Amino acid sequence: MPTPQLIAFDADDTLWPNQPHFDAAEAEIHALLAPYGDPARLGEAIYAVQRRNMSLFGYGAKSFMLCIIEAALELSAGAVPGRDIQRVLELGKRLLSFPIEPLPGVPEALAALKQRGRPLMVFTKGDLFDQESKLARSGLGDFFDYVEIVSEKDEATYRRVLARHRVPPAAFVMVGNSLKSDVLPVARLGARAIHVPYHATWVHEEVPAEQLTGVNFQTAASMADVLALLA
Amino acid sequence: MPTPQLIAFDADDTLWPNQPHFDAAEAEIHALLAPYGDPARLGEAIYAVQRRNMSLFGYGAKSFMLCIIEAALELSAGAVPGRDIQRVLELGKRLLSFPIEPLPGVPEALAALKQRGRPLMVFTKGDLFDQESKLARSGLGDFFDYVEIVSEKDEATYRRVLARHRVPPAAFVMVGNSLKSDVLPVARLGARAIHVPYHATWVHEEVPAEQLTGVNFQTAASMADVLALLA
Repeated sequence: MPTPQLIAFDADDTLWPNQPHFDAAEAEIHALLAPYGDPARLGEAIYAVQRRNMSLFGYGAKSFMLCIIEAALELSAGAVPGRDIQRVLELGKRLLSFPIEPLPGVPEALAALKQRGRPLMVFTKGDLFDQESKLARSGLGDFFDYVEIVSEKDEATYRRVLARHRVPPAAFVMVGNSLKSDVLPVARLGARAIHVPYHATWVHEEVPAEQLTGVNFQTAASMADVLALLA
Repeated sequence: MPTPQLIAFDADDTLWPNQPHFDAAEAEIHALLAPYGDPARLGEAIYAVQRRNMSLFGYGAKSFMLCIIEAALELSAGAVPGRDIQRVLELGKRLLSFPIEPLPGVPEALAALKQRGRPLMVFTKGDLFDQESKLARSGLGDFFDYVEIVSEKDEATYRRVLARHRVPPAAFVMVGNSLKSDVLPVARLGARAIHVPYHATWVHEEVPAEQLTGVNFQTAASMADVLALLA
């Protein structure tokens, strides 16, 4: 394998837990909205609103809050009381400020790669303000030479970022938990993708198995394993 | 004057009108919230919520929507009905999708600068998703070599962006309507700032006159004047 010129890490659920916070918030939302709809269908109804608004709102906690408010109004036919909307705002603010604890082995792996002189990048999609704040709260900022926050991690975005950093695909490594955002578009470019699965995945990031057929990528169970793969 | 190596343009209210859309939305919000508070104080109450949430929400239409909902709940002591919250969501969605018409002279000035071989950048703060969408809707995207969307345009950000593009301050020009974001931090770095005033300015972007004392910048009444200054 050639020595990588740039190693990029996804942020949420790769460097630190994120989806569990959203899952916990959604569980609270389900309890809040239970009076307004079949509990078994609430998740589906909320996701339908999120999907519908994706092209206007994008990803992140502010988008989440607005979609939950819209879903609450829709499910209750406008009858949801102000105090419940208030609780959605409070929940959302917690999602924008929870403490960021790096996942096990992350600081050690980043320190080891940095010591070997590898240029490191955070490469994440989502809300600019929210993602910058999480990186600052994580205390990991100093490990990274570059921070790229984009609205969508597709093949075109990877191509643009690699061109901007003058790194050929063969010298690029992407490490992340999302098959859809961190693995597939990277493998399609002929770059190296290391998948570090995480136990919680948002349905929007799920990839049907047939799309993975023949895709060339590596899997690592932990950040320590990533480090070993990059040795 | 040295030939500029990079000419950056602010986006909102420099390349296209933005504040008038927010002002119109806020006027509708005032009508909506009039039953819940002294109309003369509504603007102040809304801005207090925006200021308080700035460090969590950042700039942009999603932040605006969430702050208006919070202000509505606060002013009405939770009594604002669901249909009014629904109207805030609809207003906000309009702010995320209104047609983007370049300001007079903008396409001509950009075309002329591009023809002279000047590297051009959009340099704007705000919501990543929202700003990318506006640039796409504007039809101006192809004029620009670089797009930088940041969460705050202060001296540190300008320093970082110039370093990344390997442009010394003396070879950088910033063109924009905001004294706070486009002029002051740029002048402080020793780079060239051209202020193109716009008739509508959000109170958050206003700068007290004493902060401008002794600051070295140019003013242009129109994009045609900017072009003349850069000739």
